[in-house]
Amino acid sequence: MPDWGAHLRTMRAEVPLVLNITNFVAMNVMANVLLAAGASPAMAHAEEEIAEITALSGVLTINFGTADAGWVRGMLAAVETARDRGVPWVLDPVAVGVSRLRQDLAARLIAMGPAAIRGNASEILTLSGQGATGKGADSADPVAGAEDAARELARNTGAVVAVTGPVDFVTDGARGWRVANGHALMPRVTALGCSLTGLVGALLAGAEDRARATVAALAFFGLAGERAGAIAAGPGSFQVALLDALAAITPAELTAGARVSEA
Amino acid sequence: MPDWGAHLRTMRAEVPLVLNITNFVAMNVMANVLLAAGASPAMAHAEEEIAEITALSGVLTINFGTADAGWVRGMLAAVETARDRGVPWVLDPVAVGVSRLRQDLAARLIAMGPAAIRGNASEILTLSGQGATGKGADSADPVAGAEDAARELARNTGAVVAVTGPVDFVTDGARGWRVANGHALMPRVTALGCSLTGLVGALLAGAEDRARATVAALAFFGLAGERAGAIAAGPGSFQVALLDALAAITPAELTAGARVSEA
Amino acid sequence: MPDWGAHLRTMRAEVPLVLNITNFVAMNVMANVLLAAGASPAMAHAEEEIAEITALSGVLTINFGTADAGWVRGMLAAVETARDRGVPWVLDPVAVGVSRLRQDLAARLIAMGPAAIRGNASEILTLSGQGATGKGADSADPVAGAEDAARELARNTGAVVAVTGPVDFVTDGARGWRVANGHALMPRVTALGCSLTGLVGALLAGAEDRARATVAALAFFGLAGERAGAIAAGPGSFQVALLDALAAITPAELTAGARVSEA
Repeated sequence: MPDWGAHLRTMRAEVPLVLNITNFVAMNVMANVLLAAGASPAMAHAEEEIAEITALSGVLTINFGTADAGWVRGMLAAVETARDRGVPWVLDPVAVGVSRLRQDLAARLIAMGPAAIRGNASEILTLSGQGATGKGADSADPVAGAEDAARELARNTGAVVAVTGPVDFVTDGARGWRVANGHALMPRVTALGCSLTGLVGALLAGAEDRARATVAALAFFGLAGERAGAIAAGPGSFQVALLDALAAITPAELTAGARVSEA
Repeated sequence: MPDWGAHLRTMRAEVPLVLNITNFVAMNVMANVLLAAGASPAMAHAEEEIAEITALSGVLTINFGTADAGWVRGMLAAVETARDRGVPWVLDPVAVGVSRLRQDLAARLIAMGPAAIRGNASEILTLSGQGATGKGADSADPVAGAEDAARELARNTGAVVAVTGPVDFVTDGARGWRVANGHALMPRVTALGCSLTGLVGALLAGAEDRARATVAALAFFGLAGERAGAIAAGPGSFQVALLDALAAITPAELTAGARVSEA
Repeated sequence: MPDWGAHLRTMRAEVPLVLNITNFVAMNVMANVLLAAGASPAMAHAEEEIAEITALSGVLTINFGTADAGWVRGMLAAVETARDRGVPWVLDPVAVGVSRLRQDLAARLIAMGPAAIRGNASEILTLSGQGATGKGADSADPVAGAEDAARELARNTGAVVAVTGPVDFVTDGARGWRVANGHALMPRVTALGCSLTGLVGALLAGAEDRARATVAALAFFGLAGERAGAIAAGPGSFQVALLDALAAITPAELTAGARVSEA
């Protein structure tokens, strides 16, 4: 049994500073997810200060969910600093299909060398130039239909690519894994996908094998969802219980509870 | 007994994409309210992309709670697209009395033909050019004192007007309803009025009778509040239970629990 | 036994309008903390309207957590209005050490006469020009090591200075208090420090003795944390129970539960 919990143990020992330039909807819950899990979140975006803060950070995540021109400048400045300093960064191409702004920005960011890309099937298909049917932040395409696109995107970019949904798929272009952890209430709470991107960053920050760290992050989040779903009465109590579970799950429990298969 | 639940049933079957340009305080809870209820929320605002996203949406809501000049441009671009495409839109004139910016913007938006306007008594009185005593987002005026102003505003604009408070009032200028559902803890949680505006949008999106759909939205939200209030220990647990209740209430339960009278 | 609860009683009777220019992460939870406690929160920032809203407010708080150039203009306009109108204002120098923007802005704001400054030990040490080791919004320095810096900052500025951590320290330069209330889960929920700044503003708004009002606010928040911690299963349920406790605690309970000593 692979020791997926080892990635969680390392993260909790190192407490990486995870800098997130993310959308307004996700900021609070993403920070709480990272704090509950054991990381140190920071949220900032201003062009005037983002390079300084990026230089202090262990990892950077970028999500353009509610971006405008000023935020795009901050994102590009942050990624440039990350690249110069060797800070890994993770791209969340949320609802990339809905506007030209997002498609152009995604193309520009992908060319700047993300360590990982996490999206739903519709988003990954859109990034790959393939037709997608998703609207907004919800996916209308099945994960299985995006596996080939994910492998190709990983090979073309050098990034780990994670496609999340009922069963997640992770690939570095050569290897592949499916992660079956999760719960049906997760899509009924806003910004959980965005928050998961932060968790991918946290576990990937100090990892030698970034693809396996990404798998561990997805299994951890899904396992927390399973625990929350077992006691929740609906999406409100689910979100509360999810944060409690992220703080409570031990590395050994993650190793025991991860439902991962090679693909 | 009117079948108020039918509006909820239709909404859950159609899962409208509800695009909200709203304030920073409300974004997360509003998205969660819409997801819990069964709609598909989207939050965006940038002038660069808002027209594209509006064109994909089933309904648009506008709340200028934390707007500045850039956001105002995005709002106007969205409403223009909505008008061109026949996408109905709902105005939430939050705390309209506190600044010249808001009063001017509200006047400009009202002239652009909202399908509905939802505010508290102080906000509706201010829109009608009548004296109001409210400060900030809280109302200092009783709903009953704003009924005439609401009817006049509805007749002058063609919009459905909803005045919310302990007992809500809804009118299309000709007809009127009072909705008695609700709970005393609702004003103790921030952004619930803003979130309700999203729910009005969701139920109104595909409705033939927008005034009745608005009544159904208010009764649904108030009924969820009653359920939450019955088990909550305070405003924190109330917010959690409210989301659970929005997901749990069935159309039949809404029809049975709606406390609506014609006015 | 000093009657710390009297400050809470006064605040609940007066229901001050607390205007907050704060960061995106904190807005929702800060508004909910203030509503639960019994104050009336407002969030706004736009240069175009902030002077008008400040003039309506009982107290103003400033937190530059996610500020950019436009927000800085709004902050300065608000503080100028507050100064002209005699509205007290509170500074939260969040993560002031991470960027030149924050350090310059903090210096400028401190020169404009805040009624109170609330920060963690690293932030207060940075403001005092002394070396600090904190990263992001988390403090890496003990409160006890910042007491001298706090006293000096209070004497130099005329502000009440509060250093928060496991045991808080409050001083007006002459007097000093330590507040031992609190719970270990508080740093595991985002934006609670920011929210506490709002509570300091609410209790300080109508107070004759602003230093004692600040002590009361810290004891109140910490006592609510103790109650929440006694029933919480983790950081998610802790945040919910904290809001419930803020609404439930009576002035008499605060007086009985405050763990304050003179320093």
